[in-house]
Amino acid sequence: MGIRQDADYIIKESIKSVLPDEAVIRALKGKTFDTGKLYVVAAGKASWQMAKTASEVLGDRIEEGVVCTKYDHVKGEIPQMKCFEGGHPIPDKNSYIGTQAALDLAANLKKDDTVLFLLSGGGSALFEKSLVSETELANVTKQLLECGADISEINTIRKRLSAVKGGKFAKWCEPAHVYCIVLSDVIGDPLDMIASGPAYPDSSTSEQALQIVEKYGLNFSEETLSLLKEELPKDLHNVETIIAGNVKNLCTSAKEACEKLGYHTVILTDEMTCQAKEAGSFLGAIARSHQDSGKSLAFIAGGETVVCITGKGKGGRNQEIALAAAEKIAGLKDTAVFSVGSDGTDGPTDAAGGYVDGTTKEILQKKDIDIFQVLKDNDAYHALEKTNGLIITGATGTNVNDVAVVLIKR
Amino acid sequence: MGIRQDADYIIKESIKSVLPDEAVIRALKGKTFDTGKLYVVAAGKASWQMAKTASEVLGDRIEEGVVCTKYDHVKGEIPQMKCFEGGHPIPDKNSYIGTQAALDLAANLKKDDTVLFLLSGGGSALFEKSLVSETELANVTKQLLECGADISEINTIRKRLSAVKGGKFAKWCEPAHVYCIVLSDVIGDPLDMIASGPAYPDSSTSEQALQIVEKYGLNFSEETLSLLKEELPKDLHNVETIIAGNVKNLCTSAKEACEKLGYHTVILTDEMTCQAKEAGSFLGAIARSHQDSGKSLAFIAGGETVVCITGKGKGGRNQEIALAAAEKIAGLKDTAVFSVGSDGTDGPTDAAGGYVDGTTKEILQKKDIDIFQVLKDNDAYHALEKTNGLIITGATGTNVNDVAVVLIKR
Repeated sequence: MGIRQDADYIIKESIKSVLPDEAVIRALKGKTFDTGKLYVVAAGKASWQMAKTASEVLGDRIEEGVVCTKYDHVKGEIPQMKCFEGGHPIPDKNSYIGTQAALDLAANLKKDDTVLFLLSGGGSALFEKSLVSETELANVTKQLLECGADISEINTIRKRLSAVKGGKFAKWCEPAHVYCIVLSDVIGDPLDMIASGPAYPDSSTSEQALQIVEKYGLNFSEETLSLLKEELPKDLHNVETIIAGNVKNLCTSAKEACEKLGYHTVILTDEMTCQAKEAGSFLGAIARSHQDSGKSLAFIAGGETVVCITGKGKGGRNQEIALAAAEKIAGLKDTAVFSVGSDGTDGPTDAAGGYVDGTTKEILQKKDIDIFQVLKDNDAYHALEKTNGLIITGATGTNVNDVAVVLIKR
Repeated sequence: MGIRQDADYIIKESIKSVLPDEAVIRALKGKTFDTGKLYVVAAGKASWQMAKTASEVLGDRIEEGVVCTKYDHVKGEIPQMKCFEGGHPIPDKNSYIGTQAALDLAANLKKDDTVLFLLSGGGSALFEKSLVSETELANVTKQLLECGADISEINTIRKRLSAVKGGKFAKWCEPAHVYCIVLSDVIGDPLDMIASGPAYPDSSTSEQALQIVEKYGLNFSEETLSLLKEELPKDLHNVETIIAGNVKNLCTSAKEACEKLGYHTVILTDEMTCQAKEAGSFLGAIARSHQDSGKSLAFIAGGETVVCITGKGKGGRNQEIALAAAEKIAGLKDTAVFSVGSDGTDGPTDAAGGYVDGTTKEILQKKDIDIFQVLKDNDAYHALEKTNGLIITGATGTNVNDVAVVLIKR
């Protein structure tokens, strides 16, 4: 099997193990919800699949449900549920429509009722009712995505402009109980940050929000600034939360897949948050320095890197990791670096990530494509397209961050 | 022993093993230079110490010698040698005076004569005779250092503006033999790049030089651009070269020192060339993810990172690595990250590098210092000064790049 086939196998196996199905089944084990009525609200990129599984497990026990997910992520009808698709990463009108349906469903619940709240990454955009105008929210989100702020910082701001985030959705469900199953897409699993924590008490402060504005020199309206000054719910007594999958699981399953193929493995980290292209350079340097061990080696790094947008090209953080690594591993034999988003969508592209090996740079050079320039243009997609380096999985239905792998095959 | 003491020990031992003395002694073993006259030319930050050792080994056999090093790097007189100090990283009048003395010494040699050429990092600035005006050379160098170009790119440009670089010094020594002992400060030891290769045939091309100008949008004079269009000597038959020390040795000795203290070690790479603060973030992420192994661990990364200058503060790449890591390891027990330049001089400061641990961020916060802002201002020195995080070794006399270490003590 060639090294590209190894990569494809590792990607497939890693993602399979963090798909929502098994996670939801595990988290529902022994739960009967035998008082009052049971409602389902599912929000995020994995929500359709989580809701589908919940429906299969709980059947008629579910009274009613609402699924708020991303375009093209609804794969069919689910009994008792209404499925909505909306904009991501920037929320749009349809995101608001779906969320309103969820709020309507949870509007007049009783103490014995339960909301089974299935939460996954992307929920920040897909589960949203804005307290500011749509134009201003789009403006805020765009600035946050472009300034290089990390996801924690983005959420600290965004939750304050929302009627559902920062614990406000759980407040809204009161006096009903909320049982929340989480697929985590935030490094370190801070529950108030995942999907901006609709059912978790807020740990960020108004002061931090204002510091972020200053730090990146953000240009917000007066209305926004005044909302940033308000504190969010600090305690919620009606909520129980369980984390059913995260990037640590993703790295562990990548490791297991590598080992099945005979690689000696090192998990470097599952908390990588630096700039994507610098991470790629670092991973490429690791690849260079381990050429002569005589063993097949795999180095695994999970996390969620950031991209500083300096150009107008097409790409995503995983594609940038791979392409930057190509520069460092140029000419190396049977050496590859790939990086993939577990959700199957890297940036605003149809690729899940990128794959490069020792030949990538030469292929690009022959086509007169300079890696440095491509990265400056944030155009990794088009370069990787020319080297067969795009990883296409389609939407996977899960979302637990990214995993990057260095392979040295001997 | 505390973790800071461990760090200090590791730094001391790592640097000790790559000092020029032993390297020069090894490289001179069995060499008698028994034909003609023997001259010494030593250039670079380690040149005084290399020349001193050569003098101790070869004694009266040396006819005459010239040492071209950095200010404060001459530690006393050496028999038969004239020692010159000059500007670094930007060459100044005194750099040119020293270099001219070396050229005069090597001007009229015979076929049986030998020039013992002791070369180390910093030679690009310290061993220089410019073909362009001093003003233009300073302009070129300043732009190259500030644009984020790596050292290979800097040298590809700089050697073309010089009367000694890119093999031209060895040409000048003809018909004499040149025996060149190198302490390498360039990742991967490309001999044409170390000190811009005064005694090594050039592998870069005029075309590459012009591409670098375009890549970074550099603003050079017509005179400079026309020199960039000329090719350099492609073959030299009078030169023999030996690499006596490099970053690989530095990493290996850091590893040995860690092991002596009971750490389990991993050398991640000795070819790290990414942005300093992103490398720090990556190393900090590695530290976070290995908190629970129950073992004392050390991760070692050697190389030479780059700093993008966005502010007017004081610092260096090693200090930026450490400070960026502080953000990631905040709150972690008995966990430290440090990074140190083997030459003892990190950027334009009196520190060799920086040390941070799990308490660093909190100490800074109490003093109202924000790490992100400090890094944006390139002011790591003043922040680390306040946390006792500056590593001060003084000039070490060697220069084989940098080593960064993550320590987790259990």
